[in-house]
Formats: sequence, structure tokens, C-alpha cells
Amino acid sequence: MSSPLKDFEITLNAKAYSSGRMRCDVSVDLEGIPDGHYDLATDEGAYLGGEGTAPPPLALFAAALSGCLMTQIRSFGKNLKIPVDAVRMNTVCKWKGELYDDRTYSGSPVGFHLDIEVDSSAPQEDITRLISKAKQGCFIEKTLAQPNTVTHRLKVGDDWISI
Amino acid sequence: MSSPLKDFEITLNAKAYSSGRMRCDVSVDLEGIPDGHYDLATDEGAYLGGEGTAPPPLALFAAALSGCLMTQIRSFGKNLKIPVDAVRMNTVCKWKGELYDDRTYSGSPVGFHLDIEVDSSAPQEDITRLISKAKQGCFIEKTLAQPNTVTHRLKVGDDWISI
Repeated sequence: MSSPLKDFEITLNAKAYSSGRMRCDVSVDLEGIPDGHYDLATDEGAYLGGEGTAPPPLALFAAALSGCLMTQIRSFGKNLKIPVDAVRMNTVCKWKGELYDDRTYSGSPVGFHLDIEVDSSAPQEDITRLISKAKQGCFIEKTLAQPNTVTHRLKVGDDWISI
Repeated sequence: MSSPLKDFEITLNAKAYSSGRMRCDVSVDLEGIPDGHYDLATDEGAYLGGEGTAPPPLALFAAALSGCLMTQIRSFGKNLKIPVDAVRMNTVCKWKGELYDDRTYSGSPVGFHLDIEVDSSAPQEDITRLISKAKQGCFIEKTLAQPNTVTHRLKVGDDWISI
């Protein structure tokens, strides 16, 4: 691949608040983008002690993964002049959990699979090339592909301590 | 950590459909869960050729990450009998992109950081222990921490080919 023309950064700030049962209200800002503010929420169903007022976090995750690759297919199709009509995608996300005797559990990913159908008048090799580029551009797929450091701080009095 | 009492699996199936510009409609089913059906959507703002009818995929991702850890804090707080009142969280997600001369780009993660405030009458060591357990239980954090395989198939005629 040739060297990049330019670099860019994307930063999202999410403020989450929860005071009741399982519901979590999240206000997300896309840094530097006009109108880049989104009010979202998560909850759990009654079977997990929630009230079902919003989708569970993993449903947002599955939609984010599907939507991110879809966006790149549409955007890059246009930029590469590969005609793309409807696109249908089936995404399967699997995790497993191990429940311990203190009633907490440990979670881990099992796997992620996407079946893709592209309606297009373009030859198959163009569609394959388009999807290959879209995978490179999909921020979420690229994040899943590598080990990431997730850091945390806890507020203690007036200080923030790393935990 | 003692050996687990039992294992469980979580599977989500997401059907995504896009026919127009950037908008992607995603219908998510949580396998085996009554009422575990969620209709979601993603779009992009006008600056990326979208129509701003729904949050961008990365906003759903940031909300999912925040909401997933929040859910574990609330759920495990109850199970460990550590009192938890309001919880506030500030999550920062950063990615970078490199734009190439064919007008596609390559995306990659930069980092993920969460600042957490827990209103509680419990001693700080209990809160630290609670968050440590919540991190173990957070399916999304655990997914980010390791390299994952994301597989794809493309429909060609009546066949599915791995790509």
C-alpha cells in the first residue's frame, strides 16, 4: 500500500450516568464535529434485574460492528467508483461467561462472524476488493483484531487514582 | 480465583440492511432471551455524506463500552453486597485513520480510558474490589484486551465464500 496522504484522529467522549437499577444514560460527543452529540441509553431485561427501557450494551456493540463495516462499504464504494445498491449483513457475536461462587462472573469473547450480501452490477473481484478495503477502514474491526489497553481511574475524595 | 460454578454463553445475531446513503438499519436478537429483540440504526452526519438520522457506529460503540462496565458495577455491587448509589463515568475512545490516494483509509485504535465515580457508603477498598470484578465481567473490555478473529463470507450466486 502506498504511503498515506494524511492522518486524522477521531475522539469520542461518553458521559455515562446510572442511579437506579440497570439503566445507564450515556451522552456521547464526537470531538470537533458540529451536531456530533448523541443521547443514548442501555438497560437489561427483567431476567437480569433491569427494566428493559433500552437495548443491552452488547446489542449496541453488535449494531456498532455491523454499522461500521456497512458505512465503509457504502463510503468506499462511492470513492472507488464501485456501484453498490442494497447491502445485507448477518453478524454473529458470541461471548462466554464463567460464574463464580461470589455471584460475579468473568466474561470472554468467543468469536465474531459477518455474512455479507452486496447487490451490485460490478464484477465479483471489485466487490471482494471493496470489502477488503472496508475491513481495513472499519475502526471497530481493527480494534477487535489487536490487544488494546483500557485504562481506568477512580475518584477518591478530590483525587483520581489509577486502578 | 476458585473454579467457576458454571459456564454460560451469550450470542447476538444482528441483521443489517442499507439501501440508501449511509444509514444502516440493524435488527439485533439476543439468542434464547424472551423479548431480546432490538431495532437499532446507525448513520453519519452530512460531513461524511450521511443524513444524521441516527448516531454513528462509533457512538454506539462508546455507549456500549460505558454501559457494559456500568452494568457490571451495578449487578456485582448488589451480588457482593457493596452499596452503590449513583455512578458517573467518563469514557474516552480514540482512533486514528490514514487516508490513501484512492480515497479509502485505514483505521486503527489509539486507546480507551474510563474515569469512574461511585457514590457509596462502602470503604474505598470495597469499591476498588468491585471495579476490579466488574472489569473481569465486562464482555466488551475483555474483548478489547485480546486479539480476536473476525471472519467474513460473501454471497456469490447461491454460495457463500470466505473472504
